[in-house]
Amino acid sequence: MDTKILLDESDIPREWYNVVADMPNPPAPPLGPDGQPVGPEALEAIFPPGVIEQEASAERWITIPDAVREVLRLWRPSPLYRAHRLEQALETPARIFYKNESVSPAGSHKPNTAVAQAFYNRQAGIKRLTTETGAGQWGCALSLAGQLFGLDVRVFMVRVSYEQKPYRRTLMQTWGGEVFASPTDLTESGRKILARDPDTPGSLGIAISEAAEEAAGRADTNYALGSVLNHVLLHQTVIGLEARKQMERIGAYPDEVYAPCGGGSNFGGIAFPFFADKATGREVRLVAVEPTSCPTLTKGLYTYDFGDAIGLTPLLKMFTLGHDFVPPGIHAGGLRYHGDAPLVSQLHEEGLVDAVAIPQLETFQAGVLFARTEGIVPAPESTHAIAAVIRSARECARSGEPRTLLFNLSGHGHFDMAAYERYFAGDLKDFEYPAEAIEKSLAHLPHFGDG
Amino acid sequence: MDTKILLDESDIPREWYNVVADMPNPPAPPLGPDGQPVGPEALEAIFPPGVIEQEASAERWITIPDAVREVLRLWRPSPLYRAHRLEQALETPARIFYKNESVSPAGSHKPNTAVAQAFYNRQAGIKRLTTETGAGQWGCALSLAGQLFGLDVRVFMVRVSYEQKPYRRTLMQTWGGEVFASPTDLTESGRKILARDPDTPGSLGIAISEAAEEAAGRADTNYALGSVLNHVLLHQTVIGLEARKQMERIGAYPDEVYAPCGGGSNFGGIAFPFFADKATGREVRLVAVEPTSCPTLTKGLYTYDFGDAIGLTPLLKMFTLGHDFVPPGIHAGGLRYHGDAPLVSQLHEEGLVDAVAIPQLETFQAGVLFARTEGIVPAPESTHAIAAVIRSARECARSGEPRTLLFNLSGHGHFDMAAYERYFAGDLKDFEYPAEAIEKSLAHLPHFGDG
Repeated sequence: MDTKILLDESDIPREWYNVVADMPNPPAPPLGPDGQPVGPEALEAIFPPGVIEQEASAERWITIPDAVREVLRLWRPSPLYRAHRLEQALETPARIFYKNESVSPAGSHKPNTAVAQAFYNRQAGIKRLTTETGAGQWGCALSLAGQLFGLDVRVFMVRVSYEQKPYRRTLMQTWGGEVFASPTDLTESGRKILARDPDTPGSLGIAISEAAEEAAGRADTNYALGSVLNHVLLHQTVIGLEARKQMERIGAYPDEVYAPCGGGSNFGGIAFPFFADKATGREVRLVAVEPTSCPTLTKGLYTYDFGDAIGLTPLLKMFTLGHDFVPPGIHAGGLRYHGDAPLVSQLHEEGLVDAVAIPQLETFQAGVLFARTEGIVPAPESTHAIAAVIRSARECARSGEPRTLLFNLSGHGHFDMAAYERYFAGDLKDFEYPAEAIEKSLAHLPHFGDG
Repeated sequence: MDTKILLDESDIPREWYNVVADMPNPPAPPLGPDGQPVGPEALEAIFPPGVIEQEASAERWITIPDAVREVLRLWRPSPLYRAHRLEQALETPARIFYKNESVSPAGSHKPNTAVAQAFYNRQAGIKRLTTETGAGQWGCALSLAGQLFGLDVRVFMVRVSYEQKPYRRTLMQTWGGEVFASPTDLTESGRKILARDPDTPGSLGIAISEAAEEAAGRADTNYALGSVLNHVLLHQTVIGLEARKQMERIGAYPDEVYAPCGGGSNFGGIAFPFFADKATGREVRLVAVEPTSCPTLTKGLYTYDFGDAIGLTPLLKMFTLGHDFVPPGIHAGGLRYHGDAPLVSQLHEEGLVDAVAIPQLETFQAGVLFARTEGIVPAPESTHAIAAVIRSARECARSGEPRTLLFNLSGHGHFDMAAYERYFAGDLKDFEYPAEAIEKSLAHLPHFGDG
C-alpha cells in the first residue's frame, strides 16, 4: 500500500463544514459585560462582515471563495500518510494514519484560516491587520496570508518570545510582517503596562489588548485571531474534509480521531467533519489531547469566562481554568491557553467529544519515536496527538484489536529544536497537576452570566 | 492550471540515470598520489561494493533497489510547482517551474543519496557510518537514513558550526545521530590538530580526515559522502527524472534548467536527465549557479586537485579554486566547496553545461521575493538558482520571449533564519571576487597528473 494518499487540487473542498448545523443544541451565545448576549454588531470595529456572518452562522455548508482556494493550492490538499514504520515499531495491529498539515509554508495548519481572514478583510477594504502571537506560529501564518492578499500585518509578539525566538520573528519579517515586542509604546495599553513595569516580559493577554486596541481605533485596520472562535474552527474544517475523502479513497474509516487541543482550532478542523457522520449515527471517537499541565477540558469548569487574560473580550461559555491561570512553561506553547473553543467545549460537555491529558515527557518520547520512524520532526503540540495515538495502538497490540486511528500532525518542529535539545539533555520534566493555581484562578471567574 | 504537478508513488523512478553513458568522452579517472589512475579497490576500506560499482559504472540505467524506493516514498515523488505568483510579480511571459526538494524530512535533496548509501552499507553488513558535516544538511540526511536502515551514524561536525548551529545538531540527535565537535580526541587526526591548536574552530578538511580515518580503521564502519562523487550525483537523478515526467504530463519542456552548484549533486540531480535529451539533439540549457565569492566553474581551473582541503583524497579532475582556498563566509554554506563534481566539471569544460556566478545580496533579494510570492522560505543555497531564474525571466519581460524555466528548490531555509535576520538588518554584504586568495591557492595545486 502507498505511504501517502494524495488528492488533486480540484479536490480542495469548495465549502467549509459548519458543525453548528449538526449540534444537538444551539451554541451558547457570547455575553457582554452586562451578562446579556452580544450581537454580531459588537464585533464590527475589529472584524470584517464576512467573518462576523460566519461567526454567527448555523448553515451547514459555507462556500469557500475562489480566491481563498487559489491560495490554498500552494500546499493543499495536504497529504494523508499511512504510518507504516510507526506501526511496525509498535508491533500493533492498529492502522495509523496522519494528516500532514506541516506542509504549509508556515509549517502548521494556521494558514488555513489566516488566508480566509486576510481575504475577507481585503474584500472589506481593510488595509492592515493586527494580531498577537506568543510562540509565533500564528503571527507567521498571518504575515504570509497578509502578504499574499496585499495587506500590511502588524504583529504584537510577547516580549519574552520575541527575545527567545528570534527566528520566528525573522520568519514573519521575511513574509513582510511588522513585528513588535509587546508591550510597546505604540498603544495606550502598552504604555500603561510599561509605566507600571518597564521590564515586563509581556503576556498574550497584553499583546491581545494592544492588537485589539489598535484595530478598534483605526478604520483601515482590523484584528485577526488564530483559534477559539467559531469562524476559525470553520476555516480549519478543510483538514477533516480532505482526510475523510482520502480515507474513503482507500476504503478506510477511523475508529478514533486525535488532535492536539489548545484553543481548539486544529482539533475542530480535523474532528468536526467526522462529527457530521457521528451525528447521523456512525461510530467514531473524537479525542482532544491536551497537556496535563494545562488540563482545560479534563480538569476545567464549563462556564462563562473571558477569552483573554485581562478580561477585555466578551464572555465565552467554555471549559476554562480561569482567565488568569498561567500554566507551567511547557514547550507546547500552543497548548497553554486557559480556555477552549466554545464549540469544542459544548460538544465535550455533551459527551460527544472526548479529552485526554498527557504529561510532557511522554509527548517528547512520542515525538522522537515518530521522527525516527516516519522521518518528520513534529511540533511539540503535535506530539500530544502522537502520544495519545501510541497509547491506543499499544492497547491494540495487547488486545489484538485492529483499530483504525487518525491524527492531525498539526505542524513540524523545525522552530522548536531548543525544546528537543532540552529533552535530550534531560532538562525537561513533568509538571505536577497545578491544582492550587487552578483553584485560585477559578475563584476569579466572572460572577455573572454563568448559566 | 494547477499550481502543483503531482506524481503517484508508483512513478518514483525504478532506475537512476547515469550521465556517463551519454558523455562525449569517458570521465577522467581519479589519480593516486603517484599520478596513476586509482582503481575501485582503493575505495574498499571505506565504501561498500554497491557504491564502488556505481562510482565506476558506464551503464546508462542502474536499478534502484526496492528497499530504497520504499523509503523514498516517505516524501517522493516531490511536487513540481508552477510559480504563478512569482511570474506575476516579475510581469514576465516566462513560465517558471520548480522542483520542490524541501519536502524531505531533512528539508533538502540530500536524503536521496543518504538513503541509497545507507542501504548499500547495510547490505554489505556494515554497522556504522561516519561522515563530516559543515552547516549540517548532510549530517541530518545521513542520520535520518542511518536510523531508517538500522545503522549507527557518527557525524564529525566542524566545531564552529557545532557551536553556532545547535539546532542542526539537535536535529541529527533526534534521528539518532551521534554528533561530535571536530576536531575530537577520538581520532589520531583530531588529536594531532588539538595538540597543535586546542582552540581551533575546525574545518571541513579536518572533519573529513577524522571521519575517513575512523572508517578506514574499523571493519564494521564505512564512510559516506554527500556530494562530488559520481555515485552521489547518480542517486540524485531521481529529481530530474521525476521533473521531466511531470513537465511531460502538462506538455511542457524547459528551455533552461537551473540549480545551485556547490559540490554539484543537486545540479547533476536535476540537470543530467535533461542532458540525456540534449545528447540526442534536443535544445536545453543547463545552468549551474554558484556564488561570486566561490566561483569554481566560472573562475577556477580545470585540472587535477585534491577533493579535500588537506590532500588526503585521490586527485580528481575538476574545476577548482585550489584545495586550500577558503572562500569568504557567505551564508550559502553548501556552496563554499573549492572544487566541483568531476562529471559536472567535465561537461562544463566541454561546453555542455553553463555556469553563472551571483553575488550574495542579489540571492537574498531573490529569496525574499520568492518567499513573499510562493510562500516557501528557500535555503540560501537555493536562492542562487532563484536569482538566476529571475534574471532570465526579466530578460523575457524585456524581449517578450516566453521561455520555460525550471529550477531545483534544493531545500528550505528553516535552519538558516539567522542569515535572513542579518540580511534584513543590513549586515550582509557582497564580497569582492577574491582574486588574490584564489591565485595564491591555485599556486599550491599538486604538480603531477594534471593532463
